[in-house]
Amino acid sequence: METAHRQRSMHLAVFAQGLGAAHSVWRSPRTAPDRLHTLRHWADIARIAEEGRLDAVFIADALVLPDSIGADVGERPDPVSVLSALSAVTSRIGLIGTSSTTYNDPFTVARQFATLDHLSEGRAGWNIVTTAIAGASGNYGSAELPEHEARYARGEEFVEVVLKLWDSWEPGAIVADRAAGVYADRDRIHEIGHRGGHFQVRGPLTVPRPPQGRPLLAQAGSSATGLDLAARFADMVFTTQYDPQAAQALVRNVRALAEVKGRSPFDVKILPGLTPVIGRTESEARELADELGSLISPEATLAFMRQAFGGIDLGRYDLDEPFPDLRDELPAHAGKSRPALLIGTALEEKLTIRQMIERVGLSIGHRCLVGTPDQVADDMAHWFETHAADGFNIIPADLPHGLRDFVEQVVPRLQDRGLFRKEYTGTTLREHLSG
Amino acid sequence: METAHRQRSMHLAVFAQGLGAAHSVWRSPRTAPDRLHTLRHWADIARIAEEGRLDAVFIADALVLPDSIGADVGERPDPVSVLSALSAVTSRIGLIGTSSTTYNDPFTVARQFATLDHLSEGRAGWNIVTTAIAGASGNYGSAELPEHEARYARGEEFVEVVLKLWDSWEPGAIVADRAAGVYADRDRIHEIGHRGGHFQVRGPLTVPRPPQGRPLLAQAGSSATGLDLAARFADMVFTTQYDPQAAQALVRNVRALAEVKGRSPFDVKILPGLTPVIGRTESEARELADELGSLISPEATLAFMRQAFGGIDLGRYDLDEPFPDLRDELPAHAGKSRPALLIGTALEEKLTIRQMIERVGLSIGHRCLVGTPDQVADDMAHWFETHAADGFNIIPADLPHGLRDFVEQVVPRLQDRGLFRKEYTGTTLREHLSG
Repeated sequence: METAHRQRSMHLAVFAQGLGAAHSVWRSPRTAPDRLHTLRHWADIARIAEEGRLDAVFIADALVLPDSIGADVGERPDPVSVLSALSAVTSRIGLIGTSSTTYNDPFTVARQFATLDHLSEGRAGWNIVTTAIAGASGNYGSAELPEHEARYARGEEFVEVVLKLWDSWEPGAIVADRAAGVYADRDRIHEIGHRGGHFQVRGPLTVPRPPQGRPLLAQAGSSATGLDLAARFADMVFTTQYDPQAAQALVRNVRALAEVKGRSPFDVKILPGLTPVIGRTESEARELADELGSLISPEATLAFMRQAFGGIDLGRYDLDEPFPDLRDELPAHAGKSRPALLIGTALEEKLTIRQMIERVGLSIGHRCLVGTPDQVADDMAHWFETHAADGFNIIPADLPHGLRDFVEQVVPRLQDRGLFRKEYTGTTLREHLSG
Repeated sequence: METAHRQRSMHLAVFAQGLGAAHSVWRSPRTAPDRLHTLRHWADIARIAEEGRLDAVFIADALVLPDSIGADVGERPDPVSVLSALSAVTSRIGLIGTSSTTYNDPFTVARQFATLDHLSEGRAGWNIVTTAIAGASGNYGSAELPEHEARYARGEEFVEVVLKLWDSWEPGAIVADRAAGVYADRDRIHEIGHRGGHFQVRGPLTVPRPPQGRPLLAQAGSSATGLDLAARFADMVFTTQYDPQAAQALVRNVRALAEVKGRSPFDVKILPGLTPVIGRTESEARELADELGSLISPEATLAFMRQAFGGIDLGRYDLDEPFPDLRDELPAHAGKSRPALLIGTALEEKLTIRQMIERVGLSIGHRCLVGTPDQVADDMAHWFETHAADGFNIIPADLPHGLRDFVEQVVPRLQDRGLFRKEYTGTTLREHLSG
């Protein structure tokens, strides 16, 4: 068990989506849109991240094509398939993928991540999401998207079933005694006999116990129900935070909730999103941010916000008007914490819609740091040392170029300060996260 | 379009399951059970098959752990995940996986195989199955397994939806005009608006048009409804055939059905299963078959037959009794063609249950050829040349050893006779199959 006085170590994941987080970054010569659908693109990202000794590559998901596809990339391949391919071209880095508890079956998801854990020899992680994007329901039957609380009730039972299935083969269940003709000890392979409100699942799983026992669990919703799920199950929480004091409060809150659930408060690592835009000088960094910012089409970012706000369309306003107070307009199926953060920030800083577009457009709404490698490392160290974060989910504006900048220029500075590993000490994702 | 007077070319797939088809083959020193769950095991199989210039690796599936797991391997990893990993360690061979239309959603399956097709640059294939194993229903809710015809009705609509989703991005939909800021031509990306008896799916898919346009479709049921589905959609049919005349009749039947459906009769390649057991001399081959046969535990093969016969347990009989006529006892949810073939063979040849166990145990019920490389090549050539087969689904008794024997000893003889390619001429699975 990690304790407060033991040296903490920073944890870093890279959020790998499309050609990077910045809207319309496909128009930048820093990206190669013709490679977007190739294994080579994903392999480049994973190998660079592994060179940087990052904990994990994280591939998010969405079950609907965004409206902005005319103006911007927005394709979403199947995360587990991509991560399985990456297991063959990497050897140490963790492989985390999003899978929805709203539009899947727990037997399928348990099997997919158990398979990925075997293929990667213990590097799989599942980012548990309840689908909050309204359009997804149209691809999975005609029913409306279930409301927030109902999604989480199903999600919680879903996770319980997956955990039971991963546990359905005890350690040592495979005997493989050739002389006796005993392959497996049937007494160590169990039906789970789950009968709940949402699922009836007999088990056992068709895949033996995953190498990690339990593949890593990540969670990305910062609503009260989301954090409750995280405190109960998650090893890693992805979150959007702008303000270090607010981030510290979240960290304290999750640690306290984890203790209430009977876990060690340090078992849950909290990784706010961070988009670093790096230059050798501050003005070079600013130039790059301006260059990428100039490509952002309001249409793409408005489509992103329409999805985040459960369908509310800001395109009906003059973009130079003050950002409207949408808090009472959000539909019940929408996410909670992300809209509250974005609307709150806009109101507090009195931003126009266009200013919010610029704010959101480089980093899909996450915190963006524009500066020199030292400035970025300083900021990260400060957040880490003041317990505003256990590490960061690095969300490069452009991929793989922005990730390479980060790995070559910022990671060595974090290593030199003793904040981040110079070499992997374990082989599994769980070991990386515990180190 | 291929025509009858054009030189036909044989097509070969390898059926990759566990450590091979022979029951209890994990007990043989020819196999390495400790590697069964590793990527290395699957990569060895795929690379050997690619060295042999085979059309495809085929990974089957089952959604329930077999009862025989105490005595024999029977794990089933997620096929698409394994094939995705194999896309990274091979460059030419096709990658075919089973996915059930009974316990999946078409949007999910369309996305998985489209992703695999992109990762592999056009080498994906989907083996369409309707789940016939009774135990699977317990892992996907409490409902009973639907009956044969209902499964196929859902299966047919499922395939229609998947095809519409693959077609939802027209060729050329991605424009990527950086100067104009147009990433995709929205007029070439379509909602599918499917509203059928089983599925309502809006679309478009979140993944662009697969490199093959339509990933390859395979089908393995030889019932009337299964063949009807195959004639309508399939590029490849896997089948169990013992007798060349019966096989010729099936080939004629499928070709005629394909014509009725408006396709070219040669668009559907029919690949009977074949387990070659190879020795330098006939007696060496026989020794190997005896050695592998001696490992078969009746329990494992009885469990296999229980599954094939929809739950009927032959363990209640004396194994030296004549094989019973089960034809009127088969439950409605059971498969059709495989039970009929097995029962028919047993009755016709007046086999005991134990003799059927030996017959079934080396080759999961497929035809087994024990002989020299020349004898195996002769037999394959005869079946191919007399239109009893367009090629074979090679089902090695042990993996990867039995596949290596086949690739090193039989494939060169087929190549020397001009029956099989010496080099790949195309890069996609569809190109391999058309050559």
